[in-house]
Order: sequence, then C-alpha cells, then structure tokens
Amino acid sequence: MNSVNFIQRLRDAIGDDSVFTTPDDIAPWLTDWRGLYRGHAQAVVRPRTTEAVSRVLALCQDARVPVVPRGGNTGLCGGATPDGASNNLVLSLDRMNAIRGIDTIANTLVAEAGCILGDLQRAAAEVNRLLPLSLAAEDSCQLGGNLATNAGGVNVVRYGMARELVLGLEAVLPGGEIWHGLRTLRKDNTGYDLKQLLIGSEGTLGVITAAALRLYAPTPVRQVVIAAVASPRQALALYELLFAECGPRMQAFEFFTGECVDLVAANVEGVRSPFAGRHPAYVLVELADTADEAGLNALLERVIEQAIERDLCADAVVSSSLAQIEAMWKLREEISEAQRADGLHLKHDVSLPIEAIPDFMVSAEARIRRVCPDVRPFIFGHFGDGNLHYNLSRPAGAPNDFMAQHGEPLTAEVLDEVAQYGGSISAEHGIGQLKRDYFAKYKAPLELRLMREIKQVFDPAGIMNPGKLL
Amino acid sequence: MNSVNFIQRLRDAIGDDSVFTTPDDIAPWLTDWRGLYRGHAQAVVRPRTTEAVSRVLALCQDARVPVVPRGGNTGLCGGATPDGASNNLVLSLDRMNAIRGIDTIANTLVAEAGCILGDLQRAAAEVNRLLPLSLAAEDSCQLGGNLATNAGGVNVVRYGMARELVLGLEAVLPGGEIWHGLRTLRKDNTGYDLKQLLIGSEGTLGVITAAALRLYAPTPVRQVVIAAVASPRQALALYELLFAECGPRMQAFEFFTGECVDLVAANVEGVRSPFAGRHPAYVLVELADTADEAGLNALLERVIEQAIERDLCADAVVSSSLAQIEAMWKLREEISEAQRADGLHLKHDVSLPIEAIPDFMVSAEARIRRVCPDVRPFIFGHFGDGNLHYNLSRPAGAPNDFMAQHGEPLTAEVLDEVAQYGGSISAEHGIGQLKRDYFAKYKAPLELRLMREIKQVFDPAGIMNPGKLL
Repeated sequence: MNSVNFIQRLRDAIGDDSVFTTPDDIAPWLTDWRGLYRGHAQAVVRPRTTEAVSRVLALCQDARVPVVPRGGNTGLCGGATPDGASNNLVLSLDRMNAIRGIDTIANTLVAEAGCILGDLQRAAAEVNRLLPLSLAAEDSCQLGGNLATNAGGVNVVRYGMARELVLGLEAVLPGGEIWHGLRTLRKDNTGYDLKQLLIGSEGTLGVITAAALRLYAPTPVRQVVIAAVASPRQALALYELLFAECGPRMQAFEFFTGECVDLVAANVEGVRSPFAGRHPAYVLVELADTADEAGLNALLERVIEQAIERDLCADAVVSSSLAQIEAMWKLREEISEAQRADGLHLKHDVSLPIEAIPDFMVSAEARIRRVCPDVRPFIFGHFGDGNLHYNLSRPAGAPNDFMAQHGEPLTAEVLDEVAQYGGSISAEHGIGQLKRDYFAKYKAPLELRLMREIKQVFDPAGIMNPGKLL
Repeated sequence: MNSVNFIQRLRDAIGDDSVFTTPDDIAPWLTDWRGLYRGHAQAVVRPRTTEAVSRVLALCQDARVPVVPRGGNTGLCGGATPDGASNNLVLSLDRMNAIRGIDTIANTLVAEAGCILGDLQRAAAEVNRLLPLSLAAEDSCQLGGNLATNAGGVNVVRYGMARELVLGLEAVLPGGEIWHGLRTLRKDNTGYDLKQLLIGSEGTLGVITAAALRLYAPTPVRQVVIAAVASPRQALALYELLFAECGPRMQAFEFFTGECVDLVAANVEGVRSPFAGRHPAYVLVELADTADEAGLNALLERVIEQAIERDLCADAVVSSSLAQIEAMWKLREEISEAQRADGLHLKHDVSLPIEAIPDFMVSAEARIRRVCPDVRPFIFGHFGDGNLHYNLSRPAGAPNDFMAQHGEPLTAEVLDEVAQYGGSISAEHGIGQLKRDYFAKYKAPLELRLMREIKQVFDPAGIMNPGKLL
C-alpha cells in the first residue's frame, strides 16, 4: 500500500481531525524534549478512544507501518522518538485523558493513558487518597508513558515502582485486538500476570490505553530532614538506622554530593544549603504518616539524636513548616536544572545493591578519572532504592560539546563498573534508543532470547516501536 | 528411550540417592495432602543443587518426560500432584533448603526453593527483620511452591502477594538452561520483567530453584481487635474508616460469619467468641508498627470510638497481651480445621472488587440455595483484599460424601456469580487441576491465547506440569 492510501485509510478510520501529516504539524512529534534524538514519520495520529487506537493498529499491522507510541515526551532515552524510517506513525495518547473512575472504598483510580500524572495525583488528593507515583516531570508526563517505562521517582522506597501500583490494564495489541484487563482486584491467581509484561516494555509489545491504579491513605503529617554526611558509607549506616526505626514512614531517602549543592547554589537563584559549612554529601529523608504529628516528631527527634550519638551524620536540619519542606526538596530537585544550566553533560541512571554504593563510588570515580582526569561528577539519586543518577559534566573550561565528543568512553566505564557490582544500567529511565547497545551487551543471552520470543508472541509483524529496547 | 534407560540416565546424572522408583518410595508423592488427587509417576527425584535440577530437566526434555515440580504439597488445587500419565517425573525441591544469605542493609533474603516458609520468617526475625508472607501452611509449605502459586495469606492487605516480595529468581528452564536472575536490586528497568512470568505459573514454565526476597522492618508493636458487625456492608464501612485512619499500620483485615464462629466453638476445643452474645459476622483487624506502643493504642482507641459512634460496629474487643492476640487469631485460623472436622466440603477461593462483597454475598447465597436449599455456607477470608473463602458444607444430616456427589452445580453457581461481579475464580490458591475447566471458561480468549503462546516460548516440548493451569 502506498502512503497516500494508508493515510486515507487512517482518516476514514478515525476521522480527519485525528490524523496529521503536514511537515509543520508533525515536526514537534519527531524529537525528544532534550533535542538529542530526531526521527521521521509519515503521520501523527491522536485518537480519542480505545476503539480508534485499535483501528489504527490494525491498519498499521496490515500495512507493516511502524508505530511509535507517545506520551508526554518526558523520557530521557529517546524511547518515544521515531527512528529514521520515513514510514513511521507516531501514535499520541494525549487526547485519551479521561479519569474513568475513582473509588474510595476499593481505593482505586481508573484513568486513560493520556492523563497527566500530576492531574491524577490531584484527583486522588481531592477525595482524600494518595497516588504515590511522583517524579520531576509529573506535571507533563502521561500515565501511559509512566507505565510503559515503569517509572520510579522519589517515593519508590516506600511504595515501589509504577508496576507495583497497577491492578489492571487496558491495552491494544498490534493486530488491533483490545485487551480488556482493567481489573481492580487485589488478588487474582488465574494464570500468568500478563500486565507485568506490558509495564516496562517501552511500547514494544502494544499500546496501553488505560490503567487501574492502587491508591493509598493520604499522609498529611510530614517531616523532612537533611543530614550532612562525611561519605556514602555514612549515608548507608543512616539508611540502615532509619529503615529499622521508621519502617513504612520512610517515604524518601535521597542522596546528593556537596558538588551538587555547590552547583545548585551557583546556577539556581534563591536555593542554598541549610548548613553554614560545606559537607562532602547530604541525605534528604522524608517521613510521612496518616496521623499523629507529635508521634512523628518524637520519632524523628529520637532517630536524629541516635544518629548523631552514633556518629552517623555530622549535622542535621529538620523542617518545621510546609514552606521549609518545600525549600529542602527544592535543593534536591534543582540539581538537574543546575546541571543543565551548567552545560551539556552525560546522564547515567544506574542502580546497585545498596550496600555496594560506597565501594562503587570510589572505584567508578577512579575509572572515569583515568579516562578524563578533570571530569566533574554530580552524583545524586534515590539512595534508598540503590538508584544513583551518576551524571558527568565536562571539565571546567572545556567546550560545551565536550561530552558529545568525548562522552562515550566515560559512559562505557561507568556502565561497566555498574555491571561489575551486579547493578543495573538502567534503574528507572529505561533503555529506549540511548542504552540499546549496552542493554544488548550486559543482558544475559538467555534473557535476551526470552524477551525476543515474547516480543514475537505479542508483535509478530514487528511494528511496535522498532529500534527501541530490544 | 525406554523407562529403564531414562532412569539410569537420571541416576548417572544426579546420583542414585536422589532418584526413587520403588512403589513404596514414590507412593507419598503421588497424591495431594487432602487426598483429592492421585496420579502416576515413573520416578521421584530429589536433587540437591541447581545444576542437578538442570541435568534432570535436560534429560526430561530429551526424553519428553513430563515433569511435576513439588514443594511442600500444601496446595489446595492439585497443582503439585501428577496426572494419570505413567511416565511422569515428580521433581521435589525439598533438599534445596539452604538460606544463601540475609542482608540487613539491603534488607534481602536469598533462599532456595525447598526452604520452609516458617524457617525463613524465623531467620529474618533473628536479624530483626520481617518476612511478611504468612499463611496457614507456613510451617510446611516451601518457598518454591509459594512463588510458583503466588501465595497470599493474611498480610497481603499491607505487604502484597508473594510476587511483590520477589526481587530476583534463579530458575531452570525445561531444556536445562539455568536462569541466573537472583538480583537484589530495587530498581531495574532493563526490559521485560521475566520473573513475574514464572511467579504464579504453577510449574508450567520452569522450575524456580531460589529467590531473593525483600525484607521489611519488624513490627513488634501489635494490636488486634475483633469487631462484631451486623452485615458485610458494615464490615465494608469499617474497612473504609480503618484504611484512611491507620494507613500502613493495617496489617490484616479478616472477616468471618457468625456461622464460622459457631462451627469453631463446636469443633475446636478451647476456642470461642470473645463476645457474650452472637453476632451475624465479625472482622479481625491487626494493626502493627515498628515502634510507639502508646501511639498505636491511642490510634486504635480513637478509631474504635469513631466506629461505634458512627454505628459501624456493634461491639469490639481489643487485645491487651500477646496471649490474647494469639487467642483472637486462633478463632479466625481454626475455621478451616473446624470445617474439616465437620466433614467433607467445598472450598471456593474467590476475590471480588471489595465494594461488591455485600451484594455478592446476598446474590450468591440466593443462587446456591436454589440448587441446594439447606447447604451450609461458611464464609471467611481476607476481606481487605476482596478475598473470600466461600466454603460450603453439606446440609445437616446429609451423608459425608454429599459434596462429592452434588458439589459441582454449587461450584458452578458460586464461580459464575463471581464472574458476574468481575471477580476472580482463584484469588490466592491458583488453578492447578481443580479449576482448570473454569479457568478455560472464564478467562478471556485473548489472555488464554497469549498464555499458551508464552508457555510455548518457555516450554516448547510441553513437558512442564501438564494438565495443570493451561
């Protein structure tokens, strides 16, 4: 079928106003938000219903047209950017943004793939429930993308990854078949857990159109502490103490180096360290509970006292108001922005067995400094989950495109060192286009074979998001 | 290959003392613990290492010998009992019972499939950590079976099903390939989550030989309350209140009818209701926390007060000692034993959207009474997860084998009514042999097709646990 015929069929199937083909109309859909990837497409479709998605996929399979599902385009690995094939079709879910239901007895939220995560958080909060998935892009990322990439974020230490929040999925398979899997059951031991295959599959198996999510009890009682630590090893000891003492109240356990704080101070107005002196590293801990502010305060006080007595931190600052909590979080959250302002850099989203982090930080730094002695590491992340954003900026004075020219060997060192410790080369960002070669290099051949054969089961024609992940 | 040659190859591969073939030796492995199923096998193997399991499976695939993996044999659906084929091989994991490691920083436990669940709980407790998987058979069931069936139990409302506790798996695929997937990472977004396919697959895809499990902070501060309620609807309202107020402290929310309590009182010595009068139904709630006994007591007091004020329960008894907590749990836990003592009966392990439970209980009872007016329902279960054990005993005075003769139409009514409400015909027990026909009837054709094709990927020769699940 030629392209003109195919486009006409799309128009007939889902309506003229859902199919875009002019260069101006489709240009914004051909690149990722950071501008690292650029691809081609013959058209962009923005269907409004699951049935329309089904018709689009059936046509695509029939015509062997590659499909690139697209959410809020906030990914960091190019997973939602088309490759170089001129016949790609970008399938945006942005118009499927209805909340189909919120249930405060079952504690479930059923929403379509195009819903903005932040809107879903607020919808849950309005009925006094918590949707705990929370990440920097939450006001522009979409649920479908969150699930297709198994998003993580700052609350994983307590609530788990996106996949752990999903009770059921509605999805369309490449042939156009609709999978009506929107169950809200807590327990369902009837066969293989198919939804867990689609979650984290980065659009390579089918298109998620809606999901049933778990909600939690709200935790309005909050306390945040930033502790200054001498080393990652001290941060680890602090983590161990807090885990045992605070249990489920520990909602976040973040780590960042002194260099990150310097960078924020230099590049982001009005954000600075809460300490007078400079420290090698910091942890930010949020405790949260459904009730009992006095109890939470007493617990935190007792734990911090213990930590200082046992020499697990040098100093600590505790929040005492919502404004302070927000200011403390801002210090952590602005690291990415500060690094962006500083210039082009390399991002590595890796995870490690948590107890290996201190050794990894020493040995990884030795490796990268052998390649580039003056590289500037800015290391931060979700320490409680073993997840580091091991980012590298160019040496002071080097040209802005230094990492584009010299970054590859540094990435190779970092990821190889991660593999030495049994870590993961992608903790929460996924593989996309960015890490595809490393994925093929470090994944066990048996797992690669099983994944390829499972891909074949779902997508025998191979139309789903080619050039990503597998 | 004839059987004699095959057995000799097994002996050569894993040693004479791991291969059993005499009728006396293999008889105990041919039936389930309730004696509902009985099958055949040419041999039983009890390998000691993952490599030995690998050699066994390679030989089986080569000779097209069906393999029936076997754990503690505590299943309720015949999933670990061989079918009628004379050439079956029962593969028991019981000798693979080493704990490979416990880590109190990473909070992980790595254990082999043959470990008894209770032993793992105690090993975790010894290092001041909690392995939250807890169920009636915990002192005889084995980890491998728990994972192969995605076991549930009493703490699911807080910690989730078995699959949510698994960080990594080691497994052997039918060809003998060993999958070294024993990762302990909290975050790993590198491709499809293969471990979630094996978990809950009831031995149809491969053999789990070891697992890395998450541990939690211990919750030594406990309170249990039994509340008397007028109806399932009142239980639901009580659940809603407790969910919002107690958040993660709610560790169990169990339900049982007045008939269950009568049955326990009649059949189990020394266990009785904590209330003077008789009530239509009861809920048992356990709250637990890492610390702050006074806080937990105050919370429970406040919530119970609210519940009584808002007429969400008729009466409530709160535990004040470990002995009382144990006695209160005994009332709930002895229901199965009491029903067994009362005679042969039908078990239905179903789940429902939790808010549908009250309506379901009315409509399901109407349906079963149309079939058998004097049937005696004993309904209990993990209400907070929407999970009911909807068990039916014979009419008073009917012969003990009444349900063997007349049970099928009752089961058909119960499961069909569950399906009407969008529930699951198996909440936590699995499918095995028992529910295979109903599984095929109620599962969506698309899901059945995907499962069969995934089975084909893992087990192209079809040797894994034939006659179970799919």
